[in-house]
Amino acid sequence: MPRQSFAERLAAKQREISVSEFFERNKHILGFDSATKALLTSVKEGVDNALDACQEYGVLPDLLVQIDRVDRDEYHLVVEDNGPGIVKRQVPKVFGRLLYGSRFHTWSQTRGQQGLGISGAILYGQITTGKPAVVRSKTAQDDVAYQIELLIDTKRNRPQVLKRDFQVWDREHGTRVETHLRGRFINGRQSVMEYLRATAIVNPYARIVFQPPDGARRTFDRVSSELPRPPVEVKPHPYGVELGTLLQMAKESSHRRLTAFLQSDFSRISSRVAKEICREAEVPPESHPKNLNLSRAKRIHVAFRRVKIMAPPTDCLSPIGQRLIRTGLRNVVGSLRPEFYAPPVTRPPAVYGGHPFQAEVGIVYGGELPGDRPVEILRYANRAPLLYQQGACATAQAIESVDWRRYGLEQRGGRGMPYGPAIILVHVCATRVPFTSEAKEAISPIPEIVAEIVRALQESGRRLRSHMNKKARRAKTSEKFEIVRSVLPLMAEKSAKITGRPPPDITRTIAKIMNVIWIDERVVFEDGRHRVRVQVYNYTSARKRLALHAVLPLDALDEATVQPAPTQLRADGKASWKLPWIPPTEKVVIAFELVGLGRRGYEEGDLFVSGVPTTQVVGAEPLPGDWDLEATLSEGDDLPGDPLAEEVAESG
Amino acid sequence: MPRQSFAERLAAKQREISVSEFFERNKHILGFDSATKALLTSVKEGVDNALDACQEYGVLPDLLVQIDRVDRDEYHLVVEDNGPGIVKRQVPKVFGRLLYGSRFHTWSQTRGQQGLGISGAILYGQITTGKPAVVRSKTAQDDVAYQIELLIDTKRNRPQVLKRDFQVWDREHGTRVETHLRGRFINGRQSVMEYLRATAIVNPYARIVFQPPDGARRTFDRVSSELPRPPVEVKPHPYGVELGTLLQMAKESSHRRLTAFLQSDFSRISSRVAKEICREAEVPPESHPKNLNLSRAKRIHVAFRRVKIMAPPTDCLSPIGQRLIRTGLRNVVGSLRPEFYAPPVTRPPAVYGGHPFQAEVGIVYGGELPGDRPVEILRYANRAPLLYQQGACATAQAIESVDWRRYGLEQRGGRGMPYGPAIILVHVCATRVPFTSEAKEAISPIPEIVAEIVRALQESGRRLRSHMNKKARRAKTSEKFEIVRSVLPLMAEKSAKITGRPPPDITRTIAKIMNVIWIDERVVFEDGRHRVRVQVYNYTSARKRLALHAVLPLDALDEATVQPAPTQLRADGKASWKLPWIPPTEKVVIAFELVGLGRRGYEEGDLFVSGVPTTQVVGAEPLPGDWDLEATLSEGDDLPGDPLAEEVAESG
Repeated sequence: MPRQSFAERLAAKQREISVSEFFERNKHILGFDSATKALLTSVKEGVDNALDACQEYGVLPDLLVQIDRVDRDEYHLVVEDNGPGIVKRQVPKVFGRLLYGSRFHTWSQTRGQQGLGISGAILYGQITTGKPAVVRSKTAQDDVAYQIELLIDTKRNRPQVLKRDFQVWDREHGTRVETHLRGRFINGRQSVMEYLRATAIVNPYARIVFQPPDGARRTFDRVSSELPRPPVEVKPHPYGVELGTLLQMAKESSHRRLTAFLQSDFSRISSRVAKEICREAEVPPESHPKNLNLSRAKRIHVAFRRVKIMAPPTDCLSPIGQRLIRTGLRNVVGSLRPEFYAPPVTRPPAVYGGHPFQAEVGIVYGGELPGDRPVEILRYANRAPLLYQQGACATAQAIESVDWRRYGLEQRGGRGMPYGPAIILVHVCATRVPFTSEAKEAISPIPEIVAEIVRALQESGRRLRSHMNKKARRAKTSEKFEIVRSVLPLMAEKSAKITGRPPPDITRTIAKIMNVIWIDERVVFEDGRHRVRVQVYNYTSARKRLALHAVLPLDALDEATVQPAPTQLRADGKASWKLPWIPPTEKVVIAFELVGLGRRGYEEGDLFVSGVPTTQVVGAEPLPGDWDLEATLSEGDDLPGDPLAEEVAESG
Repeated sequence: MPRQSFAERLAAKQREISVSEFFERNKHILGFDSATKALLTSVKEGVDNALDACQEYGVLPDLLVQIDRVDRDEYHLVVEDNGPGIVKRQVPKVFGRLLYGSRFHTWSQTRGQQGLGISGAILYGQITTGKPAVVRSKTAQDDVAYQIELLIDTKRNRPQVLKRDFQVWDREHGTRVETHLRGRFINGRQSVMEYLRATAIVNPYARIVFQPPDGARRTFDRVSSELPRPPVEVKPHPYGVELGTLLQMAKESSHRRLTAFLQSDFSRISSRVAKEICREAEVPPESHPKNLNLSRAKRIHVAFRRVKIMAPPTDCLSPIGQRLIRTGLRNVVGSLRPEFYAPPVTRPPAVYGGHPFQAEVGIVYGGELPGDRPVEILRYANRAPLLYQQGACATAQAIESVDWRRYGLEQRGGRGMPYGPAIILVHVCATRVPFTSEAKEAISPIPEIVAEIVRALQESGRRLRSHMNKKARRAKTSEKFEIVRSVLPLMAEKSAKITGRPPPDITRTIAKIMNVIWIDERVVFEDGRHRVRVQVYNYTSARKRLALHAVLPLDALDEATVQPAPTQLRADGKASWKLPWIPPTEKVVIAFELVGLGRRGYEEGDLFVSGVPTTQVVGAEPLPGDWDLEATLSEGDDLPGDPLAEEVAESG
């Protein structure tokens, strides 16, 4: 072949690749790399879509997931929701084109974001079975549902509608997608059942009916009728905008003044800030955005960082929350009766590339959890469970970068996956989760996100360690206590017998020997209530005074039952009691009751003390610095603070 | 907001997402998730493209990679090749559109496959700096180069050419791409330098000049002028074709008879096989492919599996090969003087989803490699190094699933990353590598691929273990030998003195005590040659006869120097010598010379024996079953085979 024509011959091959062709060939990128995973991914895409639709619409989700086995490895999948439905003219496009959808061009915390998920599932079904998908949709104003059979014309990435129809449907509104696909139905790890269970846990306002191909129908009932508010759309925050994108946004803006463009096309830019940016960038505020050139754009881009701009709004985020994390963990742990649930940590919102996000962590430890394996990780992104690609995930990388030896887990060299009887749950919610691929199986290890997860893990780790310390010290002191309490009275009795005198009261002696403040939490569950009693014993020989602090689960607290009333109760549930003087060998009691948590909903709180040397205290931890008590207790109040501790410790 | 209009309001938001917009927003999926990685990815896309172009064109690649620092975090990148160039009308499309290219619609082993890489890099540069890319191209028939400045119109995924120009260029033909991008240049792990070095190792026919932003120009010289043959295009193999895809192929076929369609649109379907498929499927062979319905297609799909079809052709694959793997490992290990290079394993080709692929593994062990860390993994796909996403990669998952304790590495519970002083290199080549994402950082853990890698690892692991066994047995026997050799003569001398007689010859006594056949390989490197001597000592008290086997590196072997001539030398380098009887305390020597391997190019071969009880042998392993000696040695030859062993062991 003559070289002359090589470039020409090559040119004949250079052509467009339709996005459908691309994913037909690379279906594993969409999560369809094995029959087992393909079935799970299809369910996941359907359920993600359904939950998003209901949440946007503001209705409590009522989902049906049904899987039938058609053939050796062919399954029929139905996912149905009671969302708003889709108008007739849009149905073919939404389901019959890849990269088509409503959620890509907005910034909000939704499960689906790409316009790839459900049409990808339809494409996969068509590729593997040759059969069309059936989509039914009904909006609130329709009397009957509209139903189509469609294939995707992959060469053109366009829907090919084989049949249009109207159907009577008993749902008032909603969408139903049916596909045939090659799959494999399994139970256990990474199964549809596991995925739905994990979904139900963090979306307790949803009712999901699941009909597996074999076996009985399973219903995940709604356990809360409180729908998270619909996702709030936000504009891009200036901090995350790339220079080239800024230029393009300016060119496309409908505004005619630079300040107006900045103010309305970005979040957190007020009229004052917009002017400040222009001044800092030395660009006339009245200039036309369309005329923004590279050097001016660059100066504005730099000014974004120099001018003080508020952090992105965070009301657009909907974290899972501490209670549900605990419930989630409890559910997974099942009957392994773990020893300790570290109080979950929800970090304050942070920002990556202009997107607000939030990290949450929960740890459960001990009991019958297997101790000779890597810890188990439960991952969620925007309330959707992640079951694959753990190794590639920001969550796993954050866990591997923490030195868990400090927190009582085993870990070779202080890096890598820790071993031990623990489960770690991590959730990241964001207006845009940066998934590593279109299959949305793992969160990209963006430094800002990893850092926030690490902080949450460390905070959780400290709680775990403090629990273990408490446990170790309690065990040690208990032992001493038991010896003193059993031996001394016997000795006293013996001495009394010998001397013929009545046995002396040796309580103070015991206290002198023990020399601790013993704090003990007892929880009784009855009549649907947790009755909690925190007893503070003074087993020292001097009278003592201290402040006790706890985080009360406000959503479950029956405030009328809190005895005595806390000196301070903050909106986040942090409560502080300034206790009265406790004479040696005496105690004071704090009591409160919790409702609606279910038997296993509360086991142990976090207790903190201040005002006494904490080495004397067993059963509570020193108050962490982040409680900011100075700021929150009214001034002039002599409590707590270590100066008092000295005085108190000496008196009596 | 009235519910009536909700679906309508939603419809207003439902719209097309251009593939450029999609990747603008999800640039991390293309590998641009951090400044450091973005620079590496840009280089990688340029170099992948350049090497593919040269290989297709059949010229030895001559590449320039130049990075200049423009600003704090802005870099200017140039990648230049001497490939065929691109015809003028195609330049804007190839570089200014995502999902456009020449390699997607063919099936062959190329680095680039998606039509995303280089245009993705251009998109990233434009997003982060606002600056256009400059592309220059010259084909063999052009006198001057054609040069354009272009931006990508992301809303439409179309090139926007800002400037067209002609330039005098001293290259006869080739392509040059310049981008500005936000990046960070680093040295060390996951750096551009590491990537280029790893690339040079497995593409020794390429010359790559690298000008880093600071510091001296580095040239990776061409060390071989043997260009791998251009990638061979193959048709899809029937085994990997999905039912839906089969249906669509039939509809689009230009053929009018089913048999003709099967025969020419698939690989490995002969006219006879096509007829057999039709018979098995009960579909008339003369029916028109366009009329193929689902049930017939399904029957044909089933028949594909029932009829015997040859495995896909494998001449389209170009593995790295054992020698280059060894060189690659040597290069990485540098000065750590490892104790052992396990002979690399290249598995025979296998198939996943209709694509032929091949797995290769090399292991290096010991020396000063750190022993207290997870083993280091070097990953390659289609001769391109993979530096990120190891955890998600089929290679890592294969390694983690092997029980390395059997092969002498430390591993907790026999699963997970092994620890120890070892480096494992894994290469997968395929007509289509199933990357986990468009960034081409990790190979999807497709079961067939993982299984082949596991087999290669196990084979390599066995060689590692056999080395360690050999080492351990040699050490043990050496010790005994030294004692016997130093103590016995002293005793003999003493006795002689006492009795006044001359000291006796105790060699036979030593042999009796040792009772081993000692095989020892000595390698001397001089005048650019490795002179290898394998000495077989008979340290037993009987005469011995055995066969010795070795794998000779044929590409370096000077055949004239092999002394004595092997009884058999196979095309794959497997050589067998039927040795003469060796009297007690005597030895025979086999010698050969190797040329052109460089000082560190050969250190130790694999030696095997047959014909004697292998428990008597130190320094060689029992001949593995897969040598198939029965089949390869001419019949009637009495060698080797274990029956002989008995006879031999008794004689003398």
